[in-house]
Amino acid sequence: MNHAFVIGIDFGSNSVRALIVDAQSGAEFGCAGAPYPGGEQGIFTDSERPLLARQRPAGYLEAMQQCVEKALIQASGQKGFNRSLIAGIGIDATASSPLPVDAELRPLAFNPRFADNLNAWCWMWKDHCAVAEAQEITERAQELHPEYLRRCGGSYSCEWYWAKILHCLRIDPTVFQAAYTWLELPDFIPAVLGGIKDPARLRIGICAAGHKALYSRSWGGYPPAEFWGLFHPDLAALRNRMPDRIAEPGDPVAQLSPYWAELWGIPAGIPVAAGMIDAHAGAVGAGVGKGRMVKIIGTSSCDILAVPKEDSIGDIPGICGQAESSVLPGTVGIEAGQAAVGDIFQWFVQNICKGNSCLFGELENQAARQSPGEHGLLALDWFNGNRNILCNQELSGLIVGLRLQTTQADIYRALVEAAAFGARRIVDRLTEYHVSIDEIVCCGGIAVKSPFLMGIYADVLNRKLRVAASEQCCALGSAVLAAAAAGCQPSVMDAQKVFCHFGEAEYHPDPKRHKIYMELYELYKVLHDGFGTNGQTTLGHVMKRLADLSRCISSGSSSLKSN
Amino acid sequence: MNHAFVIGIDFGSNSVRALIVDAQSGAEFGCAGAPYPGGEQGIFTDSERPLLARQRPAGYLEAMQQCVEKALIQASGQKGFNRSLIAGIGIDATASSPLPVDAELRPLAFNPRFADNLNAWCWMWKDHCAVAEAQEITERAQELHPEYLRRCGGSYSCEWYWAKILHCLRIDPTVFQAAYTWLELPDFIPAVLGGIKDPARLRIGICAAGHKALYSRSWGGYPPAEFWGLFHPDLAALRNRMPDRIAEPGDPVAQLSPYWAELWGIPAGIPVAAGMIDAHAGAVGAGVGKGRMVKIIGTSSCDILAVPKEDSIGDIPGICGQAESSVLPGTVGIEAGQAAVGDIFQWFVQNICKGNSCLFGELENQAARQSPGEHGLLALDWFNGNRNILCNQELSGLIVGLRLQTTQADIYRALVEAAAFGARRIVDRLTEYHVSIDEIVCCGGIAVKSPFLMGIYADVLNRKLRVAASEQCCALGSAVLAAAAAGCQPSVMDAQKVFCHFGEAEYHPDPKRHKIYMELYELYKVLHDGFGTNGQTTLGHVMKRLADLSRCISSGSSSLKSN
Repeated sequence: MNHAFVIGIDFGSNSVRALIVDAQSGAEFGCAGAPYPGGEQGIFTDSERPLLARQRPAGYLEAMQQCVEKALIQASGQKGFNRSLIAGIGIDATASSPLPVDAELRPLAFNPRFADNLNAWCWMWKDHCAVAEAQEITERAQELHPEYLRRCGGSYSCEWYWAKILHCLRIDPTVFQAAYTWLELPDFIPAVLGGIKDPARLRIGICAAGHKALYSRSWGGYPPAEFWGLFHPDLAALRNRMPDRIAEPGDPVAQLSPYWAELWGIPAGIPVAAGMIDAHAGAVGAGVGKGRMVKIIGTSSCDILAVPKEDSIGDIPGICGQAESSVLPGTVGIEAGQAAVGDIFQWFVQNICKGNSCLFGELENQAARQSPGEHGLLALDWFNGNRNILCNQELSGLIVGLRLQTTQADIYRALVEAAAFGARRIVDRLTEYHVSIDEIVCCGGIAVKSPFLMGIYADVLNRKLRVAASEQCCALGSAVLAAAAAGCQPSVMDAQKVFCHFGEAEYHPDPKRHKIYMELYELYKVLHDGFGTNGQTTLGHVMKRLADLSRCISSGSSSLKSN
Repeated sequence: MNHAFVIGIDFGSNSVRALIVDAQSGAEFGCAGAPYPGGEQGIFTDSERPLLARQRPAGYLEAMQQCVEKALIQASGQKGFNRSLIAGIGIDATASSPLPVDAELRPLAFNPRFADNLNAWCWMWKDHCAVAEAQEITERAQELHPEYLRRCGGSYSCEWYWAKILHCLRIDPTVFQAAYTWLELPDFIPAVLGGIKDPARLRIGICAAGHKALYSRSWGGYPPAEFWGLFHPDLAALRNRMPDRIAEPGDPVAQLSPYWAELWGIPAGIPVAAGMIDAHAGAVGAGVGKGRMVKIIGTSSCDILAVPKEDSIGDIPGICGQAESSVLPGTVGIEAGQAAVGDIFQWFVQNICKGNSCLFGELENQAARQSPGEHGLLALDWFNGNRNILCNQELSGLIVGLRLQTTQADIYRALVEAAAFGARRIVDRLTEYHVSIDEIVCCGGIAVKSPFLMGIYADVLNRKLRVAASEQCCALGSAVLAAAAAGCQPSVMDAQKVFCHFGEAEYHPDPKRHKIYMELYELYKVLHDGFGTNGQTTLGHVMKRLADLSRCISSGSSSLKSN
């Protein structure tokens, strides 16, 4: 095969990034980003409906057009590159971010009739309007089809596909009726790039369908029309129009249309890979594989695994969720995560301390001088609800152990530790259910930027942690998929071997600090289960233990400092 | 009787204030304050011993000399006043703040040998070094004399007299051995003003002895030497040297010595009233009496009652404590309180928001625009431990319901509400034990300065609240005692009728807001009993209820706003 390049395109929450990679060596030749125009960092809200978060479909395309062009320009400056050598494109995007489209797969938002109607735009993953509908779907499924819920952690989320569509049907039937179907953002983009206008020609990526829309081969695809008819006959009708042709990671689902080929000056007809959820693509780009979990630590966190089918793991309570081939072909993809991580630190620094970005560094420096347990605090990391393992959006953050001496740095450290304890709780649940985790590789903005946090995570998880070398793991994962789809590499896993590398930094747990963290983690679990479940609990020792530990550590050795 | 004036002198934590009052009309003729010199706002600490807080005995006298002189100068400018008309002096001071004195009642700190030894200084009320000794005293008393503890809430505090002395014996026997006895600050000052050098001539105020040193007529004064001998034979010996002559509020215990008379140009020989704890004097100055509780709201809070003896209330668990005639002669004085109130708001604004004094006002304005329950938060006010009704210094502050949207003002309001819930828990306990409370009068810096807080307190307590007119209730209470001691008024209660007035502001509870607060208070009690006792508890509903309430209030009527 001739020298070839692939493009990975990553649609994040606020911007899109394009990465151009040498399909043989994995070398990165160009990288550029572009923000979504308008809104607040590309997100449109409604002061009357505080749970709403929408994005303008045209904004995705404008930003994509720009950033791919910028990446191509960058690559063009380098030896050996030529636009004509682009052989494939891979896509990843946030999900569940569905948007309504007409019978020619055009977004309703492109129709002047709906151009200003936020319900006709893309319902961003973090839109939480559909709380009631998610609850209804959960209740019906519990009653009639508990198997639907077992693979998504026990309850259907208000962030997911069907809840959002049902909510639209309820509050804006005109939009609902005008929609032929709803596409997840990672499926919409390949359709656009391929110029596909016939729903029958569309192939949907297994990743978003499996994790967000209850798609499973074991019950014949999406839940059947009869189930959706329980909510509304028109929802059953929508179900019957759903494209049922599914593609696995690395499968080509479209060929680049002349429109986009001409625009970017790259070959028409090259394959576009099936779209993937951004976190899952990030895991692919960070080298997820047998025994290797990838932890993406950013505003929220995602833990992704690809477990060999022959391990035949069963349902794992509180883990949302599992889907066949959603990450790597031939494996079971597992997604878990925390609804807020970096967002919590951002909240504290911006909303409470009213500090700027410098304050992060100052607080980290101060907090890093402390030993575990010294501040006497313990926090629950549920500032945006608990995604796993309690799957409850109504849970909230908690800080205990506060005293008149408590400082900003104390709270900052306690929040980082809370995130680490939350991460540990997920790893514990996975291993309790026999998922084998030999190593953990981290990626995402915080993993790269905060050795302080990584040190605490290593101490709490009691594992060596590595960080993925690429700063654009999601786009790199999409490039991996593109390389497989284009046949530049024999398979997704083969492409990973060439494309994915680790940074030099390794974080090793310290046994002494780990021991103290395990004492704190026991208390964390008391609060976790106490506030998160309906059982009885005993709390009388919690504050005393925190006070004792703080006294004991403060008067003790300094050999426990993290850094 | 001729026209006469009295001086009330109030020794607070950081400064002393003197108030000159017309003994017949109660009119205030002069008022001045002076800070204690040195230390951090007059308080000396030790970085090696973070629980230590001491004050220099000479500093008290220097500051007193200055501020009385300043008040006299101020009064001298007014018609009808003349220094020769001063007829009596009353004293109040923080307690338990004991200091070691020699056989001539001179502070050991005046001896060059001990001048720089903090253990020979005054052990300020908030010194917490004696945690272990308090625990020991509690355990021995539980075993042998549970009656000692029943009147002080069930455990002996590390802030109190005997624990501090025993701690000194353990850690600095030289100081202990050099001390003839230890005087509470409110007893030391009258001895100084009277020039009393013979311990046999000394009369101790019942207030500090009864509330802090286990003094009760029902077991013959202080616990006997045999009890203290269980800890150390020298402590038994000290007990046997203790002055056992006790004085009630308004009793004269000394006559002003020529030294001080000459210094201030006032008559020698005038009576000096028995010293009282500052909070109790504040209650006297705010008009405490039958059915009228006084709530002093400052950095911490004190709730003071004077219950007629014929009401014969029994022991009240978790209330520290009860003492006969400690507030008004012929009644049983009850003291309860919260270990931190204003200190919590100060902590939040200064330590966490890093704001200046303007920020208090801004946060109050923002928080006042909210309705109860709107912020979705709930806090426990135990940032300095829980004084009542759990009597546990190791408890700590908690905030639950935190979300990524939570603002500074949300937290500020939640902290004020937590203080109100803590206040309510105390009132509930008192009324559960048949203490009749017909009205509540508030005084102290925060009661005067924060209508916002007073409104929330009224809504939570579901009672009309008034505020004492004087801004110097403690010094005014001491002036009341002086007027009684000097015979200018027939009794303490008669002097109160003339001296004590209420401000115009009245705070009335709103039934709708009260109803929501009672929902939140139920959750507060779940956390209070859960973290504060050893029983089992169910917490699974707490976060959901807070979230539901917040949603419901946010979308509901605005008729609930506090201000």
